[in-house]
Amino acid sequence: MENPNNLYIVQSGDFVQLVSPSNKTYFLKLIEGGQLQTHRGVLSHDNIIGRQFGNSIKSHLGVEYILLRPVLSDLLLDTKRNTQIIYPKDIGYILIKLGIGNGHHVLEAGTGSGALTTAFAWAVGPSGKVTTYEIRAEMQNLARKNLARLGLEDRVNFVLQDIQSGFNEKYVDVCFLDIPNPYDYLSEVRSALMPGGPFGCILPTTNQVTRVLTALHNSGFSYVEVCEIMMRFYKPVWDRLRPTDRMVAHTGYLVFARSIG
Amino acid sequence: MENPNNLYIVQSGDFVQLVSPSNKTYFLKLIEGGQLQTHRGVLSHDNIIGRQFGNSIKSHLGVEYILLRPVLSDLLLDTKRNTQIIYPKDIGYILIKLGIGNGHHVLEAGTGSGALTTAFAWAVGPSGKVTTYEIRAEMQNLARKNLARLGLEDRVNFVLQDIQSGFNEKYVDVCFLDIPNPYDYLSEVRSALMPGGPFGCILPTTNQVTRVLTALHNSGFSYVEVCEIMMRFYKPVWDRLRPTDRMVAHTGYLVFARSIG
Amino acid sequence: MENPNNLYIVQSGDFVQLVSPSNKTYFLKLIEGGQLQTHRGVLSHDNIIGRQFGNSIKSHLGVEYILLRPVLSDLLLDTKRNTQIIYPKDIGYILIKLGIGNGHHVLEAGTGSGALTTAFAWAVGPSGKVTTYEIRAEMQNLARKNLARLGLEDRVNFVLQDIQSGFNEKYVDVCFLDIPNPYDYLSEVRSALMPGGPFGCILPTTNQVTRVLTALHNSGFSYVEVCEIMMRFYKPVWDRLRPTDRMVAHTGYLVFARSIG
Amino acid sequence: MENPNNLYIVQSGDFVQLVSPSNKTYFLKLIEGGQLQTHRGVLSHDNIIGRQFGNSIKSHLGVEYILLRPVLSDLLLDTKRNTQIIYPKDIGYILIKLGIGNGHHVLEAGTGSGALTTAFAWAVGPSGKVTTYEIRAEMQNLARKNLARLGLEDRVNFVLQDIQSGFNEKYVDVCFLDIPNPYDYLSEVRSALMPGGPFGCILPTTNQVTRVLTALHNSGFSYVEVCEIMMRFYKPVWDRLRPTDRMVAHTGYLVFARSIG
Repeated sequence: MENPNNLYIVQSGDFVQLVSPSNKTYFLKLIEGGQLQTHRGVLSHDNIIGRQFGNSIKSHLGVEYILLRPVLSDLLLDTKRNTQIIYPKDIGYILIKLGIGNGHHVLEAGTGSGALTTAFAWAVGPSGKVTTYEIRAEMQNLARKNLARLGLEDRVNFVLQDIQSGFNEKYVDVCFLDIPNPYDYLSEVRSALMPGGPFGCILPTTNQVTRVLTALHNSGFSYVEVCEIMMRFYKPVWDRLRPTDRMVAHTGYLVFARSIG
Repeated sequence: MENPNNLYIVQSGDFVQLVSPSNKTYFLKLIEGGQLQTHRGVLSHDNIIGRQFGNSIKSHLGVEYILLRPVLSDLLLDTKRNTQIIYPKDIGYILIKLGIGNGHHVLEAGTGSGALTTAFAWAVGPSGKVTTYEIRAEMQNLARKNLARLGLEDRVNFVLQDIQSGFNEKYVDVCFLDIPNPYDYLSEVRSALMPGGPFGCILPTTNQVTRVLTALHNSGFSYVEVCEIMMRFYKPVWDRLRPTDRMVAHTGYLVFARSIG
Repeated sequence: MENPNNLYIVQSGDFVQLVSPSNKTYFLKLIEGGQLQTHRGVLSHDNIIGRQFGNSIKSHLGVEYILLRPVLSDLLLDTKRNTQIIYPKDIGYILIKLGIGNGHHVLEAGTGSGALTTAFAWAVGPSGKVTTYEIRAEMQNLARKNLARLGLEDRVNFVLQDIQSGFNEKYVDVCFLDIPNPYDYLSEVRSALMPGGPFGCILPTTNQVTRVLTALHNSGFSYVEVCEIMMRFYKPVWDRLRPTDRMVAHTGYLVFARSIG
Repeated sequence: MENPNNLYIVQSGDFVQLVSPSNKTYFLKLIEGGQLQTHRGVLSHDNIIGRQFGNSIKSHLGVEYILLRPVLSDLLLDTKRNTQIIYPKDIGYILIKLGIGNGHHVLEAGTGSGALTTAFAWAVGPSGKVTTYEIRAEMQNLARKNLARLGLEDRVNFVLQDIQSGFNEKYVDVCFLDIPNPYDYLSEVRSALMPGGPFGCILPTTNQVTRVLTALHNSGFSYVEVCEIMMRFYKPVWDRLRPTDRMVAHTGYLVFARSIG
């Protein structure tokens, strides 16, 4: 039998989640001597290091916080951002549809606040790589901080460059464009992408979908798929089970294709 | 600059996809001397080994097939099965919501035809592990073949055992139950799961959701989320953009929770 | 050719709609000598009487309001209420599914604020009748005012009575229950309803649907249908066509059946 | 108390529904001496005349059929058609959004197989009128038969004419276009419609919606609304309540506006 003690003792450098009695959530990277200020008192990082996930941690006011290992969906929703959000429902399907897995090299533009970059870096594992282009330095800095916080920055190559002059990469495994006008860069995508490799983009309006469909056709892409994903939450009450009153109606149309020929 | 030649030369043992002129798709593992029989002639594996993804491969009748690297969504849809399917839209969200990533140990029951097992094995990478329980030997054999075909069987520990007697594992990172009565095994899940670890299940009826909500409450789980994901495809025609006429209305309700305290 | 002058000259007693330059909407019943106070000045009813729909009407401050004939959906959304709303998307299907038309006698409980009563009274025409039960006097008064405002009160028979003692009516054409526990009154419904007549109810939770399905089965109803209607609005912008960001996720499950045998 | 005997005794000329033991449905207009041929024997109309809704009627082979009064949704689904269907979910909302009620004059193009015409004729009551334009004589004949079958033909004015030369009507209460290019006839609509009157159309593609939005803007329409309605049915089984596996994903985008100024 495996020794469980090594498996979940929290260490300095770990990225952890703390949840208050009122379900307020904090994400933090543990540093020896560090402190977390909350509305219900201060938590010393040193009191957390050496504990196990699932344990209660007391603030100096005696309030108990639960120590959890963060999951990807929580991290994505917690991403500091000043751009349009990409939702876990879309990200999950993007990962599967593009087949992003261990060791892959993913090419992305633009970086934005790095939510999608985070998911890509998570999915490619320690032997993979994400190269992400952005033209706004302040966005790139924000994304870099978001990735560093999670310890994923080593998997990411941040490029501050307009993709009008093309990508520096060749033979990448997959390419995803999260920009308003992907239809203007499809030949650049084809040059960078492995032959037959999967391409994707997300677009808020039908007019943009129309334009990218035309451009994909003209640029030699095949196996085009357009879809949208709707997610509805339910109130988790056993004797009054029902959907929530309101929901997100639209995040974007997902378009996928493969670069052939 | 990296040497691109190593990146995409197809080799013996690779799992590849071939697409016919009429978009019929074949998945196969390349073996020296192997042959693929199609309605449009025979393709020799030896003619494929050494080629690049995106290339055309000719059958002995001269019909051209396109050589692609399979992506996860295609593999999942191609899984040989004699059970209820789990769709990529659901699997993608499950991976993200459970935070399954590199090196994790995932516990699953039941194995079924192995579609979800495949996604878990894909997501944990070569250093991760999936332990999956099943009580029907023939289902386990089918799943084993499905995983072996993709070269993912080394990451999976297949267990032929009823989970009524509990799981053999302790401190697993996440647990997912794809069985009709997850509400009967929540204490077994808690014993096997890392404290605070994420748990999930998928259920077709509202009655089952009602029962699992009660059981989660009584078994000390928290942070319960219930949701459903709807996916709508569009006809990818630029000047007549519209959803397809019909769609899948329901696959299942997803229920997630964390084992606390 | 018909004389158009009779068709749209607004008269005293008419129920009309006025729309401000900023799209604020007023509904009012015209009375000789009456006045409408708005944030942009006073409009005299006498200035409206004799005008045509589509005309501009000036307030005493010179602000122009557009005179419109109200449509049913606007009236329903404007219903003064202190209860759960029923949405036009649901009401429209209820009318069609129950086949409510000219001359019918519709039986309803409870009255609530009268939104559904309004739609039924509208649909049965001047030769039809709606009988509606309510146990809260203040709700009945509110509903009565809402109906009177639209000039539809003559078609409605308001009954202040608990339906536990049954309905006074026999052989009504259709029956609709908008109460939390319709499953408790199905034998009363059968006694009041024309043989084979259509019955409907709206319920927010799956638990209630489960209970009413059992009760319908035990009470001799057939042709049971359960459905839900989702409505998504789009931003009406030609070059950036897309759904709104958020939508109503759930109003209620609609259940229909017919009383047979 | 009212005399129930007058209320539901079926008479010659009535339009009725008969349901077989296997739920096969027949709609028919009763004629003295008439006969209905079914797979389970012949039913004499004279055996039906004089009976009550909800009664059982025996075929000459002794099989029992249930006699029902048809509701609008059943009639619409039974409409003989060779064109695209309009669904009850859409029709219900159209009636409410356009505010079609007793005594109104509704203008429609094209007639098609008359499903929407049927709903309009139903909603305007005996004192109302529907004028419907069509350019294909065979479609008009089909629609005329469909309406006549229901006894609603007296409320409908069928016009065999291209609307490129405009409508003959003025000051109609509402106008609905069920044609592929409503954007080409908006000035004709404005000429025919009561000032401020409501206009609607249904369009399958986003490209058409884009075009009609531009045209509405240029033609002086206001209060534009674009929406779509999705309907999901549930299996009506109390202990396994769940949506059906598949559903209609798309019927059309509904566009509404009012003719102002």
